Amino acid sequence: MFLTFLSDFGLKDDFVGTCHGVIKTIAPDVEIIDVTHGIPAQQVLQGAFVLANTTPYMPHGVHLAVVDPGVGSARRPLALRSSDGRIFVGPDNGLLMPAVERVGGIEAAHELANAEYALDIVSRTFHGRDLFAPAAAHLAAGVPLEALGPPVAADALAQLDLPEAEVGESRIHATVLYIDRFGNVQLNLTREHLQQAEVTPGTVVEVELALDRYYAVAARTFADARKGDVILYEDAYKNIALAISGGNAAELFAAAPGQDVRIRLQV
Amino acid sequence: MFLTFLSDFGLKDDFVGTCHGVIKTIAPDVEIIDVTHGIPAQQVLQGAFVLANTTPYMPHGVHLAVVDPGVGSARRPLALRSSDGRIFVGPDNGLLMPAVERVGGIEAAHELANAEYALDIVSRTFHGRDLFAPAAAHLAAGVPLEALGPPVAADALAQLDLPEAEVGESRIHATVLYIDRFGNVQLNLTREHLQQAEVTPGTVVEVELALDRYYAVAARTFADARKGDVILYEDAYKNIALAISGGNAAELFAAAPGQDVRIRLQV
Amino acid sequence: MFLTFLSDFGLKDDFVGTCHGVIKTIAPDVEIIDVTHGIPAQQVLQGAFVLANTTPYMPHGVHLAVVDPGVGSARRPLALRSSDGRIFVGPDNGLLMPAVERVGGIEAAHELANAEYALDIVSRTFHGRDLFAPAAAHLAAGVPLEALGPPVAADALAQLDLPEAEVGESRIHATVLYIDRFGNVQLNLTREHLQQAEVTPGTVVEVELALDRYYAVAARTFADARKGDVILYEDAYKNIALAISGGNAAELFAAAPGQDVRIRLQV
Repeated sequence: MFLTFLSDFGLKDDFVGTCHGVIKTIAPDVEIIDVTHGIPAQQVLQGAFVLANTTPYMPHGVHLAVVDPGVGSARRPLALRSSDGRIFVGPDNGLLMPAVERVGGIEAAHELANAEYALDIVSRTFHGRDLFAPAAAHLAAGVPLEALGPPVAADALAQLDLPEAEVGESRIHATVLYIDRFGNVQLNLTREHLQQAEVTPGTVVEVELALDRYYAVAARTFADARKGDVILYEDAYKNIALAISGGNAAELFAAAPGQDVRIRLQV
Repeated sequence: MFLTFLSDFGLKDDFVGTCHGVIKTIAPDVEIIDVTHGIPAQQVLQGAFVLANTTPYMPHGVHLAVVDPGVGSARRPLALRSSDGRIFVGPDNGLLMPAVERVGGIEAAHELANAEYALDIVSRTFHGRDLFAPAAAHLAAGVPLEALGPPVAADALAQLDLPEAEVGESRIHATVLYIDRFGNVQLNLTREHLQQAEVTPGTVVEVELALDRYYAVAARTFADARKGDVILYEDAYKNIALAISGGNAAELFAAAPGQDVRIRLQV
Repeated sequence: MFLTFLSDFGLKDDFVGTCHGVIKTIAPDVEIIDVTHGIPAQQVLQGAFVLANTTPYMPHGVHLAVVDPGVGSARRPLALRSSDGRIFVGPDNGLLMPAVERVGGIEAAHELANAEYALDIVSRTFHGRDLFAPAAAHLAAGVPLEALGPPVAADALAQLDLPEAEVGESRIHATVLYIDRFGNVQLNLTREHLQQAEVTPGTVVEVELALDRYYAVAARTFADARKGDVILYEDAYKNIALAISGGNAAELFAAAPGQDVRIRLQV
């Protein structure tokens, strides 16, 4: 059985390794796949975006995700089953929802309330170790979802306030969702938004981001652009992204997740 | 069989991956759990602190730890058995001792002297790969501890010079042990020290660290503090730590491991 | 079966985790060893150097390596078999060649052309996930190399332009190949070059790098040098490297891969 694991714990400290230790103590035969632990600290929206992008590439199993600024407060700990039979474990702060939607939606949701499936002592600050990892391990070892705690109605679950792109006559208003290590800037846009705005490969637009303005060209891939060109392209997860051929777009624009992006058409 | 692995090797280079390769070549069925490789370079005290904190969460097995500023000098390479049956492998510089104490103390100690359980060529600078990882792999594969080399008396082993906190009438004198990625500052204090000083949740104290002074409030968890408050709390490993609700305490104080901290009471 | 994995993907994003998910979906029983994902972005030469250094320490199996600035262009995707029976998978940009040479040379090379062993949709920008990881997983699961695509002649494969050191009467002209996390500076020199120049332990030379000049002493190990001394030593991978006992040589010299180094003899 596979257990995938995504968090904002980073790899400097022992947080990830300690959760592995807890999982393996409970379920020695479960195999862990680390999706990433590089989500910026407490950035639930970025965690949700990466979890949704990557889950379709993961084998079926238990998907543990912890980006949890509300640890120690009243936010509910959750386990969900999606309609394709995957199990998701994490805090009820919206983190799991885009991924669950991507694989068919919620079939059942339960609160993690059964102390039998947590560590004996649950700290106030490290529920990843004490609550979420043990629950995920027990689920991966075959404990049924229903045993973890009482059911929760799907419409009672926290939802993320996902920014929606607006496509107008002369411009698109979008938001930066994520920046990867190459400095590529993922937007809350898909190919459909660009088609609606009649932006096709070769179209030149003006991009305004964080007070800077640059011309950008819609391109199929880096190989279609000259070195140094700012391009708008559909990335490998089917998000529209800003990039610079041979450079770092995020640095050029001083871009950060959450920022507004205006794309002016017909320049 | 599980083999846990902690080091200061970082993940930029191949050091960790190469040790994995060596272990898997010797013991293909052993399963490796990476505790962390983010211990700051050559900081034995911080490595020992993290190893002691995390070992109780690891499944029984062989615990390999390498933070080894003395590589290439005369420091002894060691394998220990704790009284709860765990095996520890690493340099004789004190790194292993707090963890072994945490799980019941030393039952037996042996020097790694048998060349049969090292790589054919042992370099002068990478004993992690050539000496410690092979020894740990052979031990995990079932070689008895006694086969690794001659016994060493427990009182001949190097001990760390652990800073001890002092609790006085009007102040506590403590030391910074570790700073995590969230900027939380772990001190060499436990709940017992605070109780002795009559610091209870809600008590306000003055903290002096690296020439800065701030008021701090003793709190059970972040949720009990207002955003921006400096708090003193018992962290998930039962160490007392300084933190800022919604902020980075280490940055505010310019804190670093080894620094003195003075906590003034009755302010 | 083992599958080792080296890349320039870093660990901030999900790239590595997603490739793990793809591999485990195709070949659930294959065991992955991450060699490193810290190769600087798109630095093929550095990736090739680390792959060659580390492959001899890895168990036999499939060795996947992705440092691929040419993704989306016409560069060929490859699978190779070395004469000792290892399989290598990666782009045809020279990345694999020094490692294959190190373990006996090429026995067979095939282009990855059979769509059956790639994901259904191959993106233009993430061949690691869509093409290389699936091919490596199928090979590790037992698909024969020949099934992946048509053979390629060994002399048609891209080769790296490896800088060659020059040993003269009064000086050695070398190149920086790699800098590790400790700031040690690996050069394209081996013990044989130093012997040819009659540099033996204790010999003092003058090193010129990036406009700075320092005296350095040839040493067997750090323990032979005084703290602060610049030393020339044979590192654990049998490359000659510059280091500072107790310091960071790369910072002192502002060294970077690709730089010229002049070592003046008889000073």
